Amino acid sequence: MAVRAAVAGASGYAGGEVLRLLLAHPEVEIGALTGNSNAGQRLGALQPHLLPLADRVLAETTPEALAGHDVVFLALPHGQSAAVAEQLGPGVLVIDMGADFRLKDPADWETFYGSPHAGTWPYGLPELPGARAALEGSKRIAVPGCYPTAVSLALYPAYAAHLAEPEAVIVAASGTSGAGKAPKPHLLGSEVMGSMSPYGVGGGHRHTPEMIQNLSGVAGERIAVSFTPTLAPMPRGILATCSAKAVAGVTADSVRAAYDKAYADEPFVRLLPEGQWPATASVQGSNAVQVQVAYDGSVGRIIAISAIDNLTKGTAGGAVQSMNIALGLDETTGLSTIGVAP
Amino acid sequence: MAVRAAVAGASGYAGGEVLRLLLAHPEVEIGALTGNSNAGQRLGALQPHLLPLADRVLAETTPEALAGHDVVFLALPHGQSAAVAEQLGPGVLVIDMGADFRLKDPADWETFYGSPHAGTWPYGLPELPGARAALEGSKRIAVPGCYPTAVSLALYPAYAAHLAEPEAVIVAASGTSGAGKAPKPHLLGSEVMGSMSPYGVGGGHRHTPEMIQNLSGVAGERIAVSFTPTLAPMPRGILATCSAKAVAGVTADSVRAAYDKAYADEPFVRLLPEGQWPATASVQGSNAVQVQVAYDGSVGRIIAISAIDNLTKGTAGGAVQSMNIALGLDETTGLSTIGVAP
Amino acid sequence: MAVRAAVAGASGYAGGEVLRLLLAHPEVEIGALTGNSNAGQRLGALQPHLLPLADRVLAETTPEALAGHDVVFLALPHGQSAAVAEQLGPGVLVIDMGADFRLKDPADWETFYGSPHAGTWPYGLPELPGARAALEGSKRIAVPGCYPTAVSLALYPAYAAHLAEPEAVIVAASGTSGAGKAPKPHLLGSEVMGSMSPYGVGGGHRHTPEMIQNLSGVAGERIAVSFTPTLAPMPRGILATCSAKAVAGVTADSVRAAYDKAYADEPFVRLLPEGQWPATASVQGSNAVQVQVAYDGSVGRIIAISAIDNLTKGTAGGAVQSMNIALGLDETTGLSTIGVAP
Amino acid sequence: MAVRAAVAGASGYAGGEVLRLLLAHPEVEIGALTGNSNAGQRLGALQPHLLPLADRVLAETTPEALAGHDVVFLALPHGQSAAVAEQLGPGVLVIDMGADFRLKDPADWETFYGSPHAGTWPYGLPELPGARAALEGSKRIAVPGCYPTAVSLALYPAYAAHLAEPEAVIVAASGTSGAGKAPKPHLLGSEVMGSMSPYGVGGGHRHTPEMIQNLSGVAGERIAVSFTPTLAPMPRGILATCSAKAVAGVTADSVRAAYDKAYADEPFVRLLPEGQWPATASVQGSNAVQVQVAYDGSVGRIIAISAIDNLTKGTAGGAVQSMNIALGLDETTGLSTIGVAP
Repeated sequence: MAVRAAVAGASGYAGGEVLRLLLAHPEVEIGALTGNSNAGQRLGALQPHLLPLADRVLAETTPEALAGHDVVFLALPHGQSAAVAEQLGPGVLVIDMGADFRLKDPADWETFYGSPHAGTWPYGLPELPGARAALEGSKRIAVPGCYPTAVSLALYPAYAAHLAEPEAVIVAASGTSGAGKAPKPHLLGSEVMGSMSPYGVGGGHRHTPEMIQNLSGVAGERIAVSFTPTLAPMPRGILATCSAKAVAGVTADSVRAAYDKAYADEPFVRLLPEGQWPATASVQGSNAVQVQVAYDGSVGRIIAISAIDNLTKGTAGGAVQSMNIALGLDETTGLSTIGVAP
Repeated sequence: MAVRAAVAGASGYAGGEVLRLLLAHPEVEIGALTGNSNAGQRLGALQPHLLPLADRVLAETTPEALAGHDVVFLALPHGQSAAVAEQLGPGVLVIDMGADFRLKDPADWETFYGSPHAGTWPYGLPELPGARAALEGSKRIAVPGCYPTAVSLALYPAYAAHLAEPEAVIVAASGTSGAGKAPKPHLLGSEVMGSMSPYGVGGGHRHTPEMIQNLSGVAGERIAVSFTPTLAPMPRGILATCSAKAVAGVTADSVRAAYDKAYADEPFVRLLPEGQWPATASVQGSNAVQVQVAYDGSVGRIIAISAIDNLTKGTAGGAVQSMNIALGLDETTGLSTIGVAP
Repeated sequence: MAVRAAVAGASGYAGGEVLRLLLAHPEVEIGALTGNSNAGQRLGALQPHLLPLADRVLAETTPEALAGHDVVFLALPHGQSAAVAEQLGPGVLVIDMGADFRLKDPADWETFYGSPHAGTWPYGLPELPGARAALEGSKRIAVPGCYPTAVSLALYPAYAAHLAEPEAVIVAASGTSGAGKAPKPHLLGSEVMGSMSPYGVGGGHRHTPEMIQNLSGVAGERIAVSFTPTLAPMPRGILATCSAKAVAGVTADSVRAAYDKAYADEPFVRLLPEGQWPATASVQGSNAVQVQVAYDGSVGRIIAISAIDNLTKGTAGGAVQSMNIALGLDETTGLSTIGVAP
Repeated sequence: MAVRAAVAGASGYAGGEVLRLLLAHPEVEIGALTGNSNAGQRLGALQPHLLPLADRVLAETTPEALAGHDVVFLALPHGQSAAVAEQLGPGVLVIDMGADFRLKDPADWETFYGSPHAGTWPYGLPELPGARAALEGSKRIAVPGCYPTAVSLALYPAYAAHLAEPEAVIVAASGTSGAGKAPKPHLLGSEVMGSMSPYGVGGGHRHTPEMIQNLSGVAGERIAVSFTPTLAPMPRGILATCSAKAVAGVTADSVRAAYDKAYADEPFVRLLPEGQWPATASVQGSNAVQVQVAYDGSVGRIIAISAIDNLTKGTAGGAVQSMNIALGLDETTGLSTIGVAP
């Protein structure tokens, strides 16, 4: 019997991507699609790439519209998910693709978001140690941020194996869809094509505490993170270039062994052969993560680089992967490791 | 029992795309992968987006390597397919993604290709009147060119309904993957990003006689074609802007009715609602065709515009769709109408 | 003694481009810069590429702010220029980069803009026959639209030499800056990168009557125009692909001779050597126009293609070129034919 | 009296850019243009954006062709400049845009280039302490690499003021023109559009020792550099994101003061107002450098970011700026700080 899924916030990029994936999911039947400013419009006008749903009309995001589903995906502005989840009741699987339930420390939340903390839900990055067990059977899932997904998968094996000192330096380039669909001057095609630019420099990006939480969790000590995001002239993709000082005794071989071990059995993470580096185009539209790592002996640093599709593995694909685990389905159901390239 | 498929020319863009689609095809098992200059290399180094095939190694394109398959896809330079097909024998389904067997008139072939004509195979554009019947059970298929696919689907309903005079003016923009993977200076990223440029102007493009053949076939008279291709700064996609003078008595309603009728039951072609225009991003990675048509009364012309993915519906998707028909499978098996956007 | 110039609408793309050019103009001193919603802001925050003006602050667009200049460039929404020009008085050179004073026929204006016609000013496309004389000493200039600039320069030699039948079919691709800086969802980088799409199909684009006016003026008969604009994934540039049926007796040589003659002495228009085709990247940031023409005997059509930078020759460069003529300066002062490529 | 300049290697990107700048230089007359594989071709076919030079024909790169000039710019593959310079004699100003004479330490050269060291010439980054004096009157100039230009200008004020610990972590994104015009598969538009990818990871990039040399020189101690270059989907531009641990006592104010002091009088470097970050589009085609710096107290790191045009300030603009100094001209002659944006 099919899993019936609703999507709240179906007109945005995260909502569109989760629909794209659910349309290919053999166990899911797509139920209600809701929006706010776009309620009443045909989905074909808002998401013209989703032809099979073109004639569906967006409802208002109300408890009534979302009732009667097995799974509800929330693609809402932060601060709204708690109320919706409460109305849906404890028996419905609620998957929040926003930030509200990612952070464990209320002080972190309040510092970066300036509002009271709503709580913490099981974290939808199954590749992290212990994460799968917390997701199995859960009725609430907090989908990670796109940057924390890319960064955590690039660096966690080094910290899990205690190979790196507790300060990571991260520079990540993201496609523009990560900034959402609300029109703003600096996101115009005229502005972004042909240009690279940083933002949120100096520790201010809201994904920073989430990275610290993930890396510290596996390291067993607090990991400091210097994170600089940059906007790249492409619609999708994150390339995360991460590095940390190696502890004494680390070699290129010990680094590689740690990554080999971490990802030997992961269905979506691929440690590339030595000498081959990730490219975001290779994972476009897929749930795959390409990872490569090097040890630079001249400076004693481990450099780990990952490429993901920010909308797929970084948002909606991670959400569907976590849903599969929560529902007891095969984790890879409906998901692909094949990118759309060139 | 699975259909066993080989791909000759697996290192190029057409070969990579057919593999991407076959990986998602439930009835197909991927057999031999061959190349010439790249024989002996891992596919992971050549097509890094096809993770499930990363460890496969390319064989030389020889009869031995291609033997023992139910279907062989040829992604070869023109002039080579006839010899390979002959070696494979009459019982194997051979699907040529090159140009060799598309044209019916040997004189056209010789004019545009400068070599003897190899023959004509059933034409893999099922949406054209009569094409499906010719494909059913066939053991040889000539996959259309990418531009002729886009142009024929934009214009044929107007000619089938005898609404347009026999001269079409076509300007099409193509993504750079249409020019292939062989490195040439004018195809460098540095040259194509930020630039639009025409090529093959004045009737010289080799796809022109194929368009004439298709449109003339449905019109029952010779259709002259003025075709100007342009190179657009994007990896994939064709936008074909086509127009022709309307015959007397044509109205906006009669034009729309002809297109409605032509595409009412086509699984991959979508006539968009009035007022919505095709965009290549909406069909990226999918086998869908978006079509829109208008009648400009001020000049008495029908303007028909289509968007396809040149590698999917324009090459490898059309090939798989035709294979499904030839093998008696559901025509849509393994193919999608959902684009990867944004 | 320097010409003192003000720019009304300095925060948009046309305003920014005219400032970029005026900064390099040896006879011009930049005076007031005005805006409306952006009044009070530093130009450095709005036009970060104009470093020498970074600390200038935008004033409100008022008669007082614009008073005391020799030249005032207007980059305003249509409908506002007439009132501003009247306030400035007849002795000030007013150069309108908007649409208000381009069309001669009030009925055309009212059909396409839905408001009363403001009048007609000398037309700032000096390459058109008779245009230079009308600009010399003029105190009012209507700068052409970007598409009409590209299309008129591609086609007028054919019509001036009476080589073409009176119906032109035009498909043009424009960079996104042509759509302006006001943020709209379909202009987001996420939407435009990787995508080609048409708009204003079927005769509805407001630049259509301006093309008809220009071509009819040189032909001495009414030229019908089928015009389809498309949005291309690049910030700047227009590639206009134009064609028309040749009249009897036309040959490739007679076509080429007509273009050679038309552009032999034009400082900004370059008829390319046979076999070389325009590319928008080659004219990026320059006032140059690249033109090529072919005669396709198989369909009896002349195909003429031009490439311009929509913001330079298509807007601000054409404005400065016209200013030079009006003020009696050398027409090329401060302007370049050198593109920024790759 | 005009300075007569020749360009050896005029068909590539560096050669084309230096010609673009020299065409706008009021004191320079362009003499011989040479190439090797392209000798005998019209420049118009190779550099179609340089319309004023379109009919010039490339000569072979021989001593005879280059004789009789005041200045010779070399845009040659590494290893060739020494022989050419020797043939030109000591009285000609030779400006090498290649790598041959940048490094002081022969061991560095041999490690990274695998050939004997040719020597060291005055270094054409005038903004570095002491560099201007060495360039004045010099007849030999080594133009810096594009990455070392961006990185040195981002970081040197911090090291000159002894604010940072001696290990810098740098991730830089470059447009594809930095990889040159020789066609290679991974540089095809189809491959680079929509993709970010790293290369030369782990200390192997040849620009690394040059960065170390520059930063160590101002710091008075050896600065270790972890450098990761990435290829971005744009033709031009470098965004260099650089960071280093701050020494004890550093504050946001002391960092800003150091940068203010370093760049107060530099004509081409602009320290942006606080809160505004560099973007490569803002410096496109200009010799400007946009710099911003922040102190992230949570990790105790200084983050300095610069944006340059890799072909202008990063190569040919730096070359012309250095030429101006060597010849006793005003340093800014013929150069602009105005970018071509959007």
